[in-house]
Amino acid sequence: MTTHDDYLRGVLKGDRRGIARAITLVESTRPDHRELAQRLLVELTPHAGKARRVGVSGVPGVGKSTFIEALGTSLTARGHRVAVLAVDPSSKRSGGSILGDKTRMARLSADRNAFIRPSPTAGTLGGVATATREAMVVVEAAGYDIVLVETVGVGQSETAVADMVDTFLLLTLARTGDQLQGIKKGVLELADVIAVNKADGEHEQAARKAASELAGALRLLRSSTPVLTCSGMTGAGLEELWIQVVRHQEGVDLAAKRSRQQVEWTWALVRDRLLARLGEKAAPIAPAIERQVLDGALTPSLAADRILEAFLPERETPSG
Amino acid sequence: MTTHDDYLRGVLKGDRRGIARAITLVESTRPDHRELAQRLLVELTPHAGKARRVGVSGVPGVGKSTFIEALGTSLTARGHRVAVLAVDPSSKRSGGSILGDKTRMARLSADRNAFIRPSPTAGTLGGVATATREAMVVVEAAGYDIVLVETVGVGQSETAVADMVDTFLLLTLARTGDQLQGIKKGVLELADVIAVNKADGEHEQAARKAASELAGALRLLRSSTPVLTCSGMTGAGLEELWIQVVRHQEGVDLAAKRSRQQVEWTWALVRDRLLARLGEKAAPIAPAIERQVLDGALTPSLAADRILEAFLPERETPSG
Repeated sequence: MTTHDDYLRGVLKGDRRGIARAITLVESTRPDHRELAQRLLVELTPHAGKARRVGVSGVPGVGKSTFIEALGTSLTARGHRVAVLAVDPSSKRSGGSILGDKTRMARLSADRNAFIRPSPTAGTLGGVATATREAMVVVEAAGYDIVLVETVGVGQSETAVADMVDTFLLLTLARTGDQLQGIKKGVLELADVIAVNKADGEHEQAARKAASELAGALRLLRSSTPVLTCSGMTGAGLEELWIQVVRHQEGVDLAAKRSRQQVEWTWALVRDRLLARLGEKAAPIAPAIERQVLDGALTPSLAADRILEAFLPERETPSG
Repeated sequence: MTTHDDYLRGVLKGDRRGIARAITLVESTRPDHRELAQRLLVELTPHAGKARRVGVSGVPGVGKSTFIEALGTSLTARGHRVAVLAVDPSSKRSGGSILGDKTRMARLSADRNAFIRPSPTAGTLGGVATATREAMVVVEAAGYDIVLVETVGVGQSETAVADMVDTFLLLTLARTGDQLQGIKKGVLELADVIAVNKADGEHEQAARKAASELAGALRLLRSSTPVLTCSGMTGAGLEELWIQVVRHQEGVDLAAKRSRQQVEWTWALVRDRLLARLGEKAAPIAPAIERQVLDGALTPSLAADRILEAFLPERETPSG
């Protein structure tokens, strides 16, 4: 059996297998694993926090894997150690296989200064995001100085990733017709840096035009988010893009941002768990109460009281 | 003492003083008033729901009062009965005076087919929005067939208003420089119809140009929200704007939207009240726990458990 000290030593030595095992531990939902994981994280935390944390988002088809492979490779070539994590609440892994990610990023996964870990498997977004945040503590404690967190562009996963990184990068594509391809509603506002990807060959001109138009539209909407072009395939623009990422991080109070993220994450967990328990407990009575609201037999306010009383029966008897 | 039946009769008769008194009742936070109010609302609900509900938003200075006065007057002139409500969590009323609103909308407040009610006084956004939603039931039951709900553009009040109306209208101004004036982050996405206001005299040209540019930017961002120009001062464009409002309502399944709003509102109240109680109960321990998270002595996950245990102690002893 792997003990607490085995885990701790494995991670701090930077041993790949040790890191992988520790991440499997923090992803586990078994109560004894959870307890061991939390103790491990408390010990790892002083060693973590020294990496640049960058979220990479964009809808499927935008070329995220090729981009991350190219960016990651260029960063390890300059002496960095790069960890790639992901938040994908829809992911399914069979028997722990990470074949998909190894295939998607063949060069980077063979790079000894890179560590690629696919998303924790399907669960609630809160659960998946929590496991990824905890995996980030593990890889940072293991000495990776750049963490790229990929989001698949499903549901609210972008917000979850934006809340755990220093810089949130949005990849998009040149438009066809008069609409920008691949920008989900609400994601534009999360972006600290935007890049029009696939700016290569015959598409370069269109990508530049799209970037310039998007920058114009953003200025009109009072945003000064930088918009660049890049190509994951040729590597063009990646250096300038990384300069913008670093510049963004120099422009914000990172320590304050991270403290805020930690505290907000704590409260998000409290709310998630509280609402999950409310959901369980209210499930049997909710449909009937909703029906009464729609029928006009109950006002929403009375209905809310009914649901709360079922959840917190101690309210009836004053008990502090 | 005013009885339940007095309130009911006053509202259903459409008596202005009776309506005002009933709204004061639903705004009250006194427990006995709350109970009476909820009983009254259950009786009024079958008589409500027949109005068009339109939110009017825009930052201060955009000309909302003049706009509402002009739009309201043009609607009563065409035989409608128009109620104007507001959601302003920052508002303070002294002794129930609504002098401010009467002065702001002098013509409309003298119009016997209009009923103007200022925002419930300062409180949580949830509380203020709930009172306004309940006031909407009162004015609809009293026979007003158009309800305009004004939001002052502070905090999240726009979302609260968008969640209670059929159509959300955003007023903005022509740009100066290359930025649009008066569009708050996140509000653009709530808008069903957008109007560049103050399109009069020497500003008309600039307003038209701004509307066309905003429409272009929105198309680029994949939105087909109509953008018009209007003038609250001259009344120009108000007819076309109302046509767009009606068209928007014809384009959505209003019954479904309202049912969804009712159910979502119920759950929003449950969450608000639950989190308010969590806040109260966790307040004494929260700062120390947050400190431990920031010091690394607790992981966010452990900290969340501590807070939950303090709030729901029954969790320790299994009890269903």
